[in-house]
Amino acid sequence: MPSISTKGRHMPESPIRKLMPYAEQALKDGKTIYHLNIGQPDIKTPDVALDAIKESNIDVLAYSSSNGSEIYREKLADYYKKHGIDVTSNDIIVTTGASEGLLFLFSSILDPGDEVIISEPFYANYIAFSTATGVNVVPVVCKIDNNFALPPIKEYEKLITERTKAILICNPGNPTGYLYTHDEINKLGALAHKHNLFLVADEVYREFVYDDNEHHSILNLPGIDEHTILIDSVSKRYSMCGARVGCLVSRNKEVLQTVLKFAQARLSPPTYGQIAAEAALDTPQSYFDEVIEEYTKRRNLLIEELEKIKGVKIAKPKGAFYCIVELPIANADHFAQWLLESFHLNGETVMIAPAAGFYSTPGLGLNQIRIAYVLNREKLKRAVYILKEALNQYITL
Amino acid sequence: MPSISTKGRHMPESPIRKLMPYAEQALKDGKTIYHLNIGQPDIKTPDVALDAIKESNIDVLAYSSSNGSEIYREKLADYYKKHGIDVTSNDIIVTTGASEGLLFLFSSILDPGDEVIISEPFYANYIAFSTATGVNVVPVVCKIDNNFALPPIKEYEKLITERTKAILICNPGNPTGYLYTHDEINKLGALAHKHNLFLVADEVYREFVYDDNEHHSILNLPGIDEHTILIDSVSKRYSMCGARVGCLVSRNKEVLQTVLKFAQARLSPPTYGQIAAEAALDTPQSYFDEVIEEYTKRRNLLIEELEKIKGVKIAKPKGAFYCIVELPIANADHFAQWLLESFHLNGETVMIAPAAGFYSTPGLGLNQIRIAYVLNREKLKRAVYILKEALNQYITL
Repeated sequence: MPSISTKGRHMPESPIRKLMPYAEQALKDGKTIYHLNIGQPDIKTPDVALDAIKESNIDVLAYSSSNGSEIYREKLADYYKKHGIDVTSNDIIVTTGASEGLLFLFSSILDPGDEVIISEPFYANYIAFSTATGVNVVPVVCKIDNNFALPPIKEYEKLITERTKAILICNPGNPTGYLYTHDEINKLGALAHKHNLFLVADEVYREFVYDDNEHHSILNLPGIDEHTILIDSVSKRYSMCGARVGCLVSRNKEVLQTVLKFAQARLSPPTYGQIAAEAALDTPQSYFDEVIEEYTKRRNLLIEELEKIKGVKIAKPKGAFYCIVELPIANADHFAQWLLESFHLNGETVMIAPAAGFYSTPGLGLNQIRIAYVLNREKLKRAVYILKEALNQYITL
Repeated sequence: MPSISTKGRHMPESPIRKLMPYAEQALKDGKTIYHLNIGQPDIKTPDVALDAIKESNIDVLAYSSSNGSEIYREKLADYYKKHGIDVTSNDIIVTTGASEGLLFLFSSILDPGDEVIISEPFYANYIAFSTATGVNVVPVVCKIDNNFALPPIKEYEKLITERTKAILICNPGNPTGYLYTHDEINKLGALAHKHNLFLVADEVYREFVYDDNEHHSILNLPGIDEHTILIDSVSKRYSMCGARVGCLVSRNKEVLQTVLKFAQARLSPPTYGQIAAEAALDTPQSYFDEVIEEYTKRRNLLIEELEKIKGVKIAKPKGAFYCIVELPIANADHFAQWLLESFHLNGETVMIAPAAGFYSTPGLGLNQIRIAYVLNREKLKRAVYILKEALNQYITL
């Protein structure tokens, strides 16, 4: 029997995926599961996007351009201008989700053995993309005690080697919910400039910013246009994860031309997804106002309810819809599995994402979990209550 | 300015892409271009697929499963059974086009520096996927004189080294239109078994088989289930290239589990595309009968018209909708550019794909072009007439 690749053997399995069999069994056992583990919002997709699909008038469902349809990219450029980011349609390559954008970008700017510095905890699939491309992730540890703020910039600087090619941030952050300040973004930009590095920001949660905070895009850093690359997606913005439409934005022509070659090899991003994404750009502001209000209420409720649990430490999120919580336990992987396998409260339990999978430094995050507040408030409140009761039971085991 | 990756610099640009600026200029100059260069069919997408999208009733456009929606995979398994290929939904992973399937497969079974043997000329993007994954393509030269039939199997065998991990075929072939015989498929299977190699077949043109020939899938080779992997797509089958839905089929569980990890990292294939693809499986047989009849007539017309051109050698296709033609010229790249830049017949010209881009052996295919017969017969006849007149003019330059 022929053997698979070394790379294939090293591909990580997501911490949530490992729990799937236990979740399936729990369902078979008749349990109700509250999903605090996933980033799939329950928010309705804007009608304007769904209607555009229903009204689509296609005879031949053809390839679009490899860099995305011209009209969509032009409307996207308008969207960015509206958000204070001055780019043209030529600075944009439409990708099949942010995932493909990251994969193509890693392939375009990083050779196997090159290093990318990422503040941890970070989105678990960054490890998958780096494994797929043979790139080494060098983590900078952020701390729950200051809500995962940017560590002193010298912590980054001392990790820079000859192989360092890029710094990657997620802003606002998954899984931390942290929103970088203007000062922090400036410091990262100065560092990238000083050491001739690419600065990549995954800004897919741009709109999900709370408490009247402001989002600062790396594309607005002056004087380092050749360094900055933005990764974006419609998945969370319009609650249309299934469209599989994202984009990569940069003013560095060499990067764009290289990413385009990878994009050409896969022919085109999905046509229907682009139709929906283009129409979604006309979503009224009231939709976002309502969504942000809802997420703010959920976050506040979540924090309030979590604070009722003894021994819990919470990183208060300023953006996105995730929250890292430290629990008074030794191993969240075990606890998460136990919740599905051995616990129920009147037939109900919760599924959580153990946070160790968001760290690449071994041993970190073992007592932390990520909660995605993508349930309505009633369910969220109930879920945290169940979590509390479960913890009480678990720690006396 | 930070520099892009070595891999990025080595990514090939497709031979057709290089001609794009000349095509754009020709259009600006008011010329009409007959496109013999592209694989985008003009055939209508089945109504059943387009209607399913229009009638879709979605509130939240959510992720599907990473391996594709369960119901689609079950219907796909039925499709394969109907075509005499006995697989279950568990043997199938839905991918974002065959392109993603190939990229994930290369990553899953081949390490950088590993070798894959491919008979040339081959689909140009195989080189892109191998460059992206650091894999070396080892070509086996096929000849136009026998319509690009499989060379003696010893030609393959003598190329096998310690790094050889897989053999890849496209059946029926793009760009050759060649359909492998049962005997040829058996020989490839025996070779893969003997040397413990994977045997991968891109069978996206399965239905496009002419003259009552039969298609033989590698998945029907007995006794080598662990070796065979099928790459497939709905793009050409239902003329829905823009759906971006393909799949990977194998009975090798380790390969499937590894590909699934790459699939999980990109979350899911497009939801709308899967809705259309699932519905397309109900396309009536009459649709295919008409399409095959149309392509057969086009192919016959194409050959008939090409044979009127002096000094032309034609590889008669038995499947797909491509044809490699040898022209009485030295350099088809130059000729293709000249057709767009310097030639017109009453304001009309043709765009062709120079075939050198389908070879990895330097110097081969320089006097060959690939013609895609995806134009209706009237246009096809006119396009070949223009090609003939152009050649007459070009060879006297």
